[in-house]
Amino acid sequence: MKATIIHGAGDIRVESVPDPTIHKPTDALVRVVRACICGSDLWPYRSMPASPEGARIGHEFLGFIEDVGADVAGFKAGDLVVAPFVWSDGTCDFCQEGLQTSCRHGGLWARDGIDGGQGEAVRVPQAQGTLVKLPVGDDSALLASLLTLSDVFPTGYHCAQTAGVGPGSMVTVIGDGAVGLSAVLSAKRLGAERIILMGRHKDRTDLGREFGATDVVAERGDEGVEKVRALTGGDGTHKVLECVGLKEAIETAFAVVRDGGTVSRVGAPQYDEVPMDFGVFMRNVTLTGGVAPARAYIDKLLPDVLEGKIQPGKVFDRTVSLDDIAVGYQAMANRTALKVVVQP
Amino acid sequence: MKATIIHGAGDIRVESVPDPTIHKPTDALVRVVRACICGSDLWPYRSMPASPEGARIGHEFLGFIEDVGADVAGFKAGDLVVAPFVWSDGTCDFCQEGLQTSCRHGGLWARDGIDGGQGEAVRVPQAQGTLVKLPVGDDSALLASLLTLSDVFPTGYHCAQTAGVGPGSMVTVIGDGAVGLSAVLSAKRLGAERIILMGRHKDRTDLGREFGATDVVAERGDEGVEKVRALTGGDGTHKVLECVGLKEAIETAFAVVRDGGTVSRVGAPQYDEVPMDFGVFMRNVTLTGGVAPARAYIDKLLPDVLEGKIQPGKVFDRTVSLDDIAVGYQAMANRTALKVVVQP
Repeated sequence: MKATIIHGAGDIRVESVPDPTIHKPTDALVRVVRACICGSDLWPYRSMPASPEGARIGHEFLGFIEDVGADVAGFKAGDLVVAPFVWSDGTCDFCQEGLQTSCRHGGLWARDGIDGGQGEAVRVPQAQGTLVKLPVGDDSALLASLLTLSDVFPTGYHCAQTAGVGPGSMVTVIGDGAVGLSAVLSAKRLGAERIILMGRHKDRTDLGREFGATDVVAERGDEGVEKVRALTGGDGTHKVLECVGLKEAIETAFAVVRDGGTVSRVGAPQYDEVPMDFGVFMRNVTLTGGVAPARAYIDKLLPDVLEGKIQPGKVFDRTVSLDDIAVGYQAMANRTALKVVVQP
Repeated sequence: MKATIIHGAGDIRVESVPDPTIHKPTDALVRVVRACICGSDLWPYRSMPASPEGARIGHEFLGFIEDVGADVAGFKAGDLVVAPFVWSDGTCDFCQEGLQTSCRHGGLWARDGIDGGQGEAVRVPQAQGTLVKLPVGDDSALLASLLTLSDVFPTGYHCAQTAGVGPGSMVTVIGDGAVGLSAVLSAKRLGAERIILMGRHKDRTDLGREFGATDVVAERGDEGVEKVRALTGGDGTHKVLECVGLKEAIETAFAVVRDGGTVSRVGAPQYDEVPMDFGVFMRNVTLTGGVAPARAYIDKLLPDVLEGKIQPGKVFDRTVSLDDIAVGYQAMANRTALKVVVQP
C-alpha cells in the first residue's frame, strides 16, 4: 500500500510499504477513507534532521474496517470507524478513568512499528478499546466534522474542560489554529459567556467568531496582553486556553489570566520549562491541560456532530489526495491552509 | 515600642521603633500576645544583603485590640484577635471570592510602612476585613493552635484544598517542616486515606504520623521517588503537596505524581521556572497552589481548633521572648527548632 513517510524537514514522500495484516487477536485493519494533517505534524516538518529511511507520520483518520482479530468484539468488516490519536485498550484503570493517553497497553501511531494515519490502510492495535463506530456512510456530509473527533476537536475540548470552563465563564483562547478554533467551539458548548480569541489571521478569527468568539485580539505580546486586559477591566479572564505550544504563548497566558484563574495548555510544548515564579505564585495561577485523551470525549461529542449542532469540520479548508499530501503540508506550513484533509 | 528588624543575613535585632497609632479610620491597633517565626522568614535570614536601616519582619501574630478607627465595626478594645499573613478589606470581589491575597486594597505585613508581626504592637490596616475575633482569653491552652491560623495551618490547608484532596485520596506530602506537617493534618481532615510524608527528620515525621501520615519516606531525590513509587504500585499518588519551595522539591513532586494527577505548591518559590516539558504534558499533570488566602480558611478551621479536634499548634516546639528572637531564628535555621513562638 501507499503511506506517507517523512524523510526530514520539508521532505514528505508517499511510498510503497508492506500491506498491514492482523498481527494480534486485538488488532483490526482499517482502510482509510479520510485522514488529515495536524499542526503537530508541522514540528517535524520544520525541524526533523534528514533521514534516508524516514518515518511514518499521521495520527488522525477514519475509515472502513476490513478485518478484525479474534478478540475484537462489536466491530465487523464494513463498519465506518474513527480512531483517536492515541490507541488504548479501554479496560485498564487509566482508560476507565478517562485518561486513555496513559493507557497501560496503548501507544502512539506511526511509532514502534505501528502504521501512521496518513496512508491507505492502518493496522489498529487494541482495536476494541480504540475505535468508535460511526453510524453514517462514506458519502456523509458529516465526514469532515467526524474526522475532527480523532484529535483536533477533542484537543480543544480537553483544553476547555480541564480549564474548568462552564456556564458564564470568561475565557481567553490563545491561537487561531485549528486547535484554538476548536477550543472556542468547545468553550461555547460548555456555556462560556465571553470568549476572547487571540489570533492575527482574519479568515481564521472570522471562523472563530462563527464558533462563538465574542472578541478578537489581533495583537501579540505585550500589546495583545494590554488589549485583553483592557477588555476585562484590567484583570484578565479566569480561564485561559493555550493552543499554540510555544513558551511565548504560555507567557501571554499567564499575563492575561485573572488572579486565582487557570491556564490550560494543549499545544504540544516546544519548551522545557515554564515561568512559575514568585509573581505567579502570589497570584494563585493554576497550570493544567496536557495531551487530550480524545477517546474519552468522542462518545460525548459524537451526538452533537451527528445532529449537526456543531460543525467542527469547518476548520478544514483544503482537501488533497494522498499522492499530493506534500502540497498539503506546504500549504499548512506557509499558512495558506488552516487544516488539510487527505483523501487516499 | 520594640520590634524586630532584620539588617541582613543572620542579623536579627530588636530595636525601638515609633509606637503605632491609628492613621486611617479602617485601622486597628493590636497589642501582640503571641507571634512566631515563619519558614519564609528564613529566606532573608539566610540571604539578605547587609542593610544599615534594616527592615521590619514577621507576619504571624495574635493579640488584643487596643483601639479601632471610626470605620471598624464589630471589634472593640480588649478583643483577642488573630491576623492572617496578608491584610485585606474583606469587601472587594477577590475577597468575596475567597482570594484575599489578591485583595484590591490589601497588602503584606512589614512592607511599605506597615508594621511587622514580630513586635510589641501592630497597626492593622483594613482591620475589619483582616482580623478574626477569638473567643478565648490570653491564658487559653489553645493559643498556640490559634496562632497557626495566621499562616502555617491555612497554608497547609490551601495546599491540600487546591490539590483537590478529598475522601479516599492518596497523597504525597513533600517536606516535614511546619507547613508540610500542616498539609498532612489538612489532608487527614479532608478525608485522605493514605498520606505519604517525605521528610528526613524523625522527630518531625513522628509528629507527621500523629497528624495522619500513614507512611514516611526519609530518602530524597531519585531514591525517595523510587520509594514512593514502590509504595504506590509504581504509579505515584494522585495528589502531591509541595511544601518546600525549592526546584528540587517540584521535580520530586512531578516524579511522584500519578498521571492525570495534581501537584499543589505552597512553599514560597525559590525558583523562576518549573519543568513542564513534553513528558509532563503527556502525563496530564496539573500544577496548582500559590500563596494561601489564610483569611478565607480561618472561619472554617477555627471551630475545629476551639473544640480541640485538631491541634495544629503542635508544630511549635520552642518559645522565646521578643528580646531573644534572634535565638529563635538561629534555632529554626539550624533545625534545632521546628517552629518558634515569640512572646513579647
